[in-house]
Amino acid sequence: MKAKNTIPRNRFLPEGISLLRQLNAKALPTTLNLGLGKPEEDMPVVLRPLMQVALSESSLEYTENAGDLKTREALSGRFKLNGAASLLLTHGAQEGLMAALLATLNHGDEVLLPDPGFLAYAPMVRMLGAKPVSYTLKLVQNAYHHDLTLIKSKITSRTRAIILSSPGNPTGCDLEEAEFSALLKLIKTKKMIILSDEVYGMLHFKKPYFPLATLSDRVISVNSFSKSHALTGWRIGFVATCDQALARSCLVAHQYIATCASVPAQRFLEQLLKSPLFESVAMDYKSRYQNKLSLFREHSSPKLREKTPLVSGGFYLFPKLPKKQSSVQFCEELLRKENVLAVPGVAFGKNGEGSIRLSLALPDEQVIKAAQVLSKYY
Amino acid sequence: MKAKNTIPRNRFLPEGISLLRQLNAKALPTTLNLGLGKPEEDMPVVLRPLMQVALSESSLEYTENAGDLKTREALSGRFKLNGAASLLLTHGAQEGLMAALLATLNHGDEVLLPDPGFLAYAPMVRMLGAKPVSYTLKLVQNAYHHDLTLIKSKITSRTRAIILSSPGNPTGCDLEEAEFSALLKLIKTKKMIILSDEVYGMLHFKKPYFPLATLSDRVISVNSFSKSHALTGWRIGFVATCDQALARSCLVAHQYIATCASVPAQRFLEQLLKSPLFESVAMDYKSRYQNKLSLFREHSSPKLREKTPLVSGGFYLFPKLPKKQSSVQFCEELLRKENVLAVPGVAFGKNGEGSIRLSLALPDEQVIKAAQVLSKYY
Repeated sequence: MKAKNTIPRNRFLPEGISLLRQLNAKALPTTLNLGLGKPEEDMPVVLRPLMQVALSESSLEYTENAGDLKTREALSGRFKLNGAASLLLTHGAQEGLMAALLATLNHGDEVLLPDPGFLAYAPMVRMLGAKPVSYTLKLVQNAYHHDLTLIKSKITSRTRAIILSSPGNPTGCDLEEAEFSALLKLIKTKKMIILSDEVYGMLHFKKPYFPLATLSDRVISVNSFSKSHALTGWRIGFVATCDQALARSCLVAHQYIATCASVPAQRFLEQLLKSPLFESVAMDYKSRYQNKLSLFREHSSPKLREKTPLVSGGFYLFPKLPKKQSSVQFCEELLRKENVLAVPGVAFGKNGEGSIRLSLALPDEQVIKAAQVLSKYY
Repeated sequence: MKAKNTIPRNRFLPEGISLLRQLNAKALPTTLNLGLGKPEEDMPVVLRPLMQVALSESSLEYTENAGDLKTREALSGRFKLNGAASLLLTHGAQEGLMAALLATLNHGDEVLLPDPGFLAYAPMVRMLGAKPVSYTLKLVQNAYHHDLTLIKSKITSRTRAIILSSPGNPTGCDLEEAEFSALLKLIKTKKMIILSDEVYGMLHFKKPYFPLATLSDRVISVNSFSKSHALTGWRIGFVATCDQALARSCLVAHQYIATCASVPAQRFLEQLLKSPLFESVAMDYKSRYQNKLSLFREHSSPKLREKTPLVSGGFYLFPKLPKKQSSVQFCEELLRKENVLAVPGVAFGKNGEGSIRLSLALPDEQVIKAAQVLSKYY
């Protein structure tokens, strides 16, 4: 007989199978899959020769923990950061986020999170022994916005960080400069930082990307090249902050999590930063995704169009359901009857209930089909 | 005026600059550096063509969180594990270790660690809010050994894990099968696991490598190909455990730390596992390092030889100092007078004081020179 309770376990560890994964497991190969949180294609074909150059002769042994100095200098220059010391190359944004949280949080601390928001935030905060406290994103004039009054009311003496994400996943919410300034003013008198998840930042339809960390030393910016350059499997991203103590804390956490970022990925990024392709690939994806979202709207019924909030960037739409009903039930029915997979909004937080997330990083004909099928319900 | 105490910080986070790094910073380009914890060379030249094949046409987007199924199946077959589900590909052993600790520890838990032992264990345990408790490795017949009576005496109701490392860094200690069985018996009645750091396992001079996880479902084995195949910068390793619940906990922690291991590295590993080079490269390093350690002994004075414990594998030696003195002072003097860098034993724990670590993954002439210079002090 095996007593399972003799195996130690972090009691804040989430269960392994998320709602998203459960649904994905039911999908068939023929399913029109709007559930994937990733770019349309495997790495861009135009980048393959660059990869060969990057790896053919370079050293592939450990770099320093923070990452190769030249690459960090190049990134710092491009993004107007405070030199190489304000940057840390990470194993994607995921590891960057974990390093930043591990570096700053103590047991019992509180972290403010967007609801609806990226589904990893709350479990990550929880498994470090801290407490996720969600702030609702508000629909105003058919787009999701930050409600500063609400956010202010959620700050307690235990609050240590607020996670911002703009353009947000799944809402496509934006954070305007005035809002950011007001938020900064709000937290300046507190023992708090802003953790800015910028993975869709280079896919913002109206604003050129810059790390929010360039605006204040109370900000840690986390980003990767997974979405902007379709380099998901390369796991390369960065953590940037202009506060020296904070940068050092993140570096310490990072070194014990990862030693250093993948060196092949660092070498590849080094070449990419020198190439005009760095700019053009991201630009191409941005306009491509913007066109796909427009295409979806064009082929939507008037009611679906009305129910679909406007987004500031990225490749997701987050429509409200046609009537008050469970998003899980709606998605199960959609999969069963139409062989179309969408993600129940409730997976992104309590406030996501009543909506569904559609990932439109797909070929145009699939985008059109998605609009047509969904329109039947609206 | 900037109030530093307004920036949140994990109060268990270690300071950034370790003893090792401080000393390294003083080294000159001409210094004979015995301080590096890494293989003699950048990745083996014979593996470069394999890398080209691995990356030229394969998909480089996200794999599943645990890593590519085929690669895990191949690894499981080779190491006689319990199928792909008992394996997790990680961003090196460092991330594997962090995932295992994060998956199993709660605030206030205790973890037993070898002293002298790898310098990252204690800070990692501490920054997760748990308590490192060291167990002394004992010199018996001029080799470091595990003292089971001592280990038993250190187990409390809060102990959740014991970290084993064999061949150990820096001591080269071995763990015999009978010792492992006794240890297993000891922990079976407790809520405890064994966390087995096996990064030097394929460099054991006498035993073929197998993960200890194959012997009991109370074991998590952590390994990488950084030392055995000189693939340090690729950051590719694995976590293996045959307990389903434990494997799942580790997977959950891993997915929130890393999403998945570097996909280029996974593809490369897939090719490497199919090639006879997998075996031959590790074998070659093993005999090369064994020869280097012998070479050092040959060129050592009788007293240095006597003061240098025998090791079971790897590329380190951990001699006692000629007389009772501070290992930091000895190393500072060695650097200043001889331009030779060694690591003070105290960096590896209280019980490492009075010894120094020499990394001999260096060209033969440097190994000989190291023996000659050190012999002057013995």
